[in-house]
Amino acid sequence: MPATRQLIDQLTDRLGRSQVLTDTDIVASYVHDEAEWAPYSAPLAVARATRPGDERETVRWALEHHVPLVARGAGTGLSGGANSIAGCVVVSLAKMDAVLEVNPLERIAVVQPGVVNDRLRETVAEQGLWYPPDPASSPWSTIGGNVATNAGGVCCVKYGVTRDYVIGLEVVTGTGEVVRLGRRTAKGVAGLDLAALYVGSEGTLGIVTEVTVKLRPLPDPGRTVLGYFDNIVDAGVAVRDVAARGLTPSALEIVDRICLEAVDEMTGMGLASEANVVLIGKVDEPGEAGVRAARQMMAAFEAGAATFVAETADAEEADAMMAARRLAYPAMERKGPLLTEDIVVAKEHVPEMLRRIEQISQDVGITIASVAHAGDGNLHPLMVAGRDNEDERERAQAAFDRIIHECLDLGGTVTGEHGVGLLKMPGAARELGPQIMAMQRAVKAALDPQGIFNPGKVF
Amino acid sequence: MPATRQLIDQLTDRLGRSQVLTDTDIVASYVHDEAEWAPYSAPLAVARATRPGDERETVRWALEHHVPLVARGAGTGLSGGANSIAGCVVVSLAKMDAVLEVNPLERIAVVQPGVVNDRLRETVAEQGLWYPPDPASSPWSTIGGNVATNAGGVCCVKYGVTRDYVIGLEVVTGTGEVVRLGRRTAKGVAGLDLAALYVGSEGTLGIVTEVTVKLRPLPDPGRTVLGYFDNIVDAGVAVRDVAARGLTPSALEIVDRICLEAVDEMTGMGLASEANVVLIGKVDEPGEAGVRAARQMMAAFEAGAATFVAETADAEEADAMMAARRLAYPAMERKGPLLTEDIVVAKEHVPEMLRRIEQISQDVGITIASVAHAGDGNLHPLMVAGRDNEDERERAQAAFDRIIHECLDLGGTVTGEHGVGLLKMPGAARELGPQIMAMQRAVKAALDPQGIFNPGKVF
Repeated sequence: MPATRQLIDQLTDRLGRSQVLTDTDIVASYVHDEAEWAPYSAPLAVARATRPGDERETVRWALEHHVPLVARGAGTGLSGGANSIAGCVVVSLAKMDAVLEVNPLERIAVVQPGVVNDRLRETVAEQGLWYPPDPASSPWSTIGGNVATNAGGVCCVKYGVTRDYVIGLEVVTGTGEVVRLGRRTAKGVAGLDLAALYVGSEGTLGIVTEVTVKLRPLPDPGRTVLGYFDNIVDAGVAVRDVAARGLTPSALEIVDRICLEAVDEMTGMGLASEANVVLIGKVDEPGEAGVRAARQMMAAFEAGAATFVAETADAEEADAMMAARRLAYPAMERKGPLLTEDIVVAKEHVPEMLRRIEQISQDVGITIASVAHAGDGNLHPLMVAGRDNEDERERAQAAFDRIIHECLDLGGTVTGEHGVGLLKMPGAARELGPQIMAMQRAVKAALDPQGIFNPGKVF
Repeated sequence: MPATRQLIDQLTDRLGRSQVLTDTDIVASYVHDEAEWAPYSAPLAVARATRPGDERETVRWALEHHVPLVARGAGTGLSGGANSIAGCVVVSLAKMDAVLEVNPLERIAVVQPGVVNDRLRETVAEQGLWYPPDPASSPWSTIGGNVATNAGGVCCVKYGVTRDYVIGLEVVTGTGEVVRLGRRTAKGVAGLDLAALYVGSEGTLGIVTEVTVKLRPLPDPGRTVLGYFDNIVDAGVAVRDVAARGLTPSALEIVDRICLEAVDEMTGMGLASEANVVLIGKVDEPGEAGVRAARQMMAAFEAGAATFVAETADAEEADAMMAARRLAYPAMERKGPLLTEDIVVAKEHVPEMLRRIEQISQDVGITIASVAHAGDGNLHPLMVAGRDNEDERERAQAAFDRIIHECLDLGGTVTGEHGVGLLKMPGAARELGPQIMAMQRAVKAALDPQGIFNPGKVF
């Protein structure tokens, strides 16, 4: 491959020797995200951006030589969006991790894309501020990756997702230019909102090099209500009842027994109890309003036939349960390759969708574990197949496809916060239909005329 | 014009005789919005959509015959975005005014584009729900128009703008197809967020035929703090101080004496007092938190050298002041053709920007009245020129241009909520620069390949 060698040498000339990785063992840790079921292929190299301008140089090099680029943060994605494709260069943004500005007066922060979500949250908290989007991956995932997938999280049921906080982006475009989209001001409508378009575009429209986010004041710690249920459909009824009572929970999460046991195995936390399903609700209205909301939430849980309901006076217990929610995914991952759904249905349909998932589990003969941002109707059924167990793998895939079918039947969406990547491409195509897919491709072609950014993903 | 006649007959065949207006006197009321300074030309006809499908028929007819379309709601826009252009057909959506669904459980409403903002707000309030975006035009402006401009309003300082509430759109596209963009569910990231892109696109990408919006529970009535100031820069200092104290006002509005006097003239309300500038602040945290916030807001007003500060125990007085804020624009309009700015600067720069506007007023020798969504840094300096007074007109235009120059110098944006339309085209082009303008045009061409939607506007 002398031609390839020459190509890589030219990239090395632009970025510096240590920033272009070709050693197979090292490259191996950059070739896929955590969607273990999504395919990937070997890249030509990994380019690590370490200085401002490295991304632009890489894009210009790629445009010259028609090399596809796959941008990557921490690689915690769950749809294969950051998976390497044959002949590409993976652009790692993990080292572009400076918090450039925290501005309490304007309530904004400006960060490089490699800043880890929790670090941003900790940094702004020092000034009494809060960046709400909190995907379960927040200890590891980067803001750039969060922007790419329009990441959600636990707080989103009340406080919205990544798009609701991103007001400006610096981007290297499909023509190799560096532009600042959006704004720093509280409002702004000058032209089409390209910043909004780039959020959730999964690396298909350019490379994000800087992110300006809105912040909020730190919320009240709030009150936590725990409910145990015999089965997940009952918990779903409680979730619907929370909405029907007009409550605005700041979190409403389901963790089932399979996940709790997996977390216990990993951490020794000892959370699995006689309950089969735990529903964790939070409300954060201040003062008397919060007391009333917590009381109403308890009533909603009881309306779902909870076997146990309590407001947790013990902050540690509340934290432990929420930690279990966050750890469910890595804990389940230890059991084998995980196939993760990310469907969203209307709150009205949460019990019915959970019932259908149980039916699919029985029909297909595979265990389906469940965590859910239930208050949003955002369900994450998890299928595990034993390693190298082809039969289980096929059944898991069959369950995955049927869940998507049932979700669309109920008017839902196939991805709430993980993105389409590779895993949800068939589902997204069915959800959107050929006309909207054509619109998506037209916009992609307009902004990435050479098609170098993450080709073969999403659409 | 037999060819034109034939064209219009074909449109009439599709829509029905009474829906295609060509009578010059009737057409005259559809040819411009309230941006009296923006140019407009005679259309071929006005097409009034009255049944679902009329918009699609009109778009297909326009595509066949290469006729530009200018969509229009109530015509309350302030940038000329809905102004008729030569040889176009104006598509009036005002009669598509059904509230199709209010769903308290999902907290969404689905409406046709011609629904007036206040009517949506009243309809959902019957179920204890709230649609926050409240432009001053809310008694007249339509949701379709609000979507086109990504309208803001008084509540937006705390509760966000139209884009923050639109989750789904039905649109007739540039290929004459009807598609449903976005979602009904709480979250969703399947593909590029085209719904977000259409919000604020000012009719340049298609015709919106249905809008799905998120709702909130009705907020607490809250507490109102009034402050009087000798001059507007002092009020700006108070606004900055509100932000510096970490308060989250639910409204923070400036009305100057010129506007108060104009409202008094129109309504006989008798609001103009010895104060030159009124700052109206609201906080709506429940209970004790609200009491504390109001107290801090009063301290912030005093830090801006207010000559009078009081929390209004009297809801009627508070409502009267807020009504004056809403009526300022129509009241000023009675004085002559109004040229309206819509700049946004960082909160830090609010006093300095207000100072520069005063300087410009002196330099250019023209009176500049001011209202402002001050808490957002969104300022609306208003220039009035006497009718047929060419000299005043030129000076008003000079002031307009200098204000835009100074706003950009301070890192602001030329339009916060009115849209680019025609009036802000030079300013938007300067703000965005040639690279982003090229991106905007590329996206426009991708989604409106024949260029039939509102050509010659925005970019």
